[in-house]
Amino acid sequence: MIKIVIIGSGNVAHHLIKAFTQSKEINVIQVFAREKKSINLLPDFTTIITNYNELVEADLYIIAVSDDAIASVSSQLPFKNRLIVHTSGTVSIDSLDSKNRKGIFYPLQTFSKDKEVDFSQIPICLESENEIDFELLKKVAENISNNVFEINSEQRKALHVSAVFVNNFANHLYQIGNEICIENNVPFEILKPLILETANKIMTLSPKEAQTGPAKRNDNQTIQAHLEFLTNENQAKIYKILTQSIQNNGKKL
Amino acid sequence: MIKIVIIGSGNVAHHLIKAFTQSKEINVIQVFAREKKSINLLPDFTTIITNYNELVEADLYIIAVSDDAIASVSSQLPFKNRLIVHTSGTVSIDSLDSKNRKGIFYPLQTFSKDKEVDFSQIPICLESENEIDFELLKKVAENISNNVFEINSEQRKALHVSAVFVNNFANHLYQIGNEICIENNVPFEILKPLILETANKIMTLSPKEAQTGPAKRNDNQTIQAHLEFLTNENQAKIYKILTQSIQNNGKKL
Repeated sequence: MIKIVIIGSGNVAHHLIKAFTQSKEINVIQVFAREKKSINLLPDFTTIITNYNELVEADLYIIAVSDDAIASVSSQLPFKNRLIVHTSGTVSIDSLDSKNRKGIFYPLQTFSKDKEVDFSQIPICLESENEIDFELLKKVAENISNNVFEINSEQRKALHVSAVFVNNFANHLYQIGNEICIENNVPFEILKPLILETANKIMTLSPKEAQTGPAKRNDNQTIQAHLEFLTNENQAKIYKILTQSIQNNGKKL
Repeated sequence: MIKIVIIGSGNVAHHLIKAFTQSKEINVIQVFAREKKSINLLPDFTTIITNYNELVEADLYIIAVSDDAIASVSSQLPFKNRLIVHTSGTVSIDSLDSKNRKGIFYPLQTFSKDKEVDFSQIPICLESENEIDFELLKKVAENISNNVFEINSEQRKALHVSAVFVNNFANHLYQIGNEICIENNVPFEILKPLILETANKIMTLSPKEAQTGPAKRNDNQTIQAHLEFLTNENQAKIYKILTQSIQNNGKKL
């Protein structure tokens, strides 16, 4: 049985605890939360503590707190030479205090408290300073996910920037689509199958192969008509820059 | 039995013919193709013609050709007062020649010849000049899809612009994500579950509710780190403008 302590009570902590409690090889022996009431998804048998001095010995401590709190939390841990990982896509492994052994346990997914996720499909990106720790992290990750990767801090940075494009920015485009629908009295529902198919398409085609639309086929008449249609300056600016980017595709700018 | 003639042999024509041949109430009696060899997905019993004068009488003629050919094709039809529709998201109903009754039969989806689609989930947007024609279009559409909508030309224009944002532009962001992965030696595979979940999320949440990321939470430290990471000017420009747009959210610019 691998003994794990989770430090944090946000979205990532919640979903991790939920996934671990379904594994027979992992025991979440303690959860540290600044405020006890923030942990309401936990099984009753999990011990919730609010004081670092109550932390017991474990094989792995997972710090799942906001990026800017990671360094401070890791420096407050009242022990040495144990394995400590954080779950952030952006924070360097060096932000963890050197008195303990360091690692990264980064589940690459968008988490909302109210939305169930299937952890088995979520890629987990691992990094550690030494091989024995890596083997433990791998074992833990493979207990909850079928997609486990070794990713160093530089690669993780690239992944996180990419994730901003494919997740945060793509979602913002959905929002612009939604706004245009609302302004023109069209149900946004009509676009949902298209949104799903757009994402599904690149499971089998590369994004470059999957690209369609007026920009791709240099249909300037349609592009002009769209720009005349868009009275919102911000929307028009985004339309222009993305159209240009598609048209310049392959050219390094 | 509703008798339909399809004019065209591109992606939309192919997928429509395939869907119609599975319906018991619809009979595709002829397909017009400029070149016979371009129709290879058709069941053997469909008559393929290459000359407008061979067109027989039908309840409905669906012009599924490229946008800029619609007007010319409709004017070449050697008959009057029959029901003619086109399948374009952008072309006005008025582009169809007035010697026949006009309508729109616009399936809102991204079609690739090599990728199967489940037509029952594809929204079909209908428009016609009179109610009897609309009833026929509705019957035809409901035979192949569970998502049938009455959409006028102005609404269709809005839908098409929205579709460019949620489909063409979202796919381009996937491509940028892919490029960043390639440049940094990270498998793009890792991002695929995130891409699917991003699309899935807005089936139940509004895009505004689903928005996460550094721009949304005004995490300027991460934004700066990402901009320093992006050495490709075009990618940095897109990062900036979309970050700004998320941060200005709700403000009309």
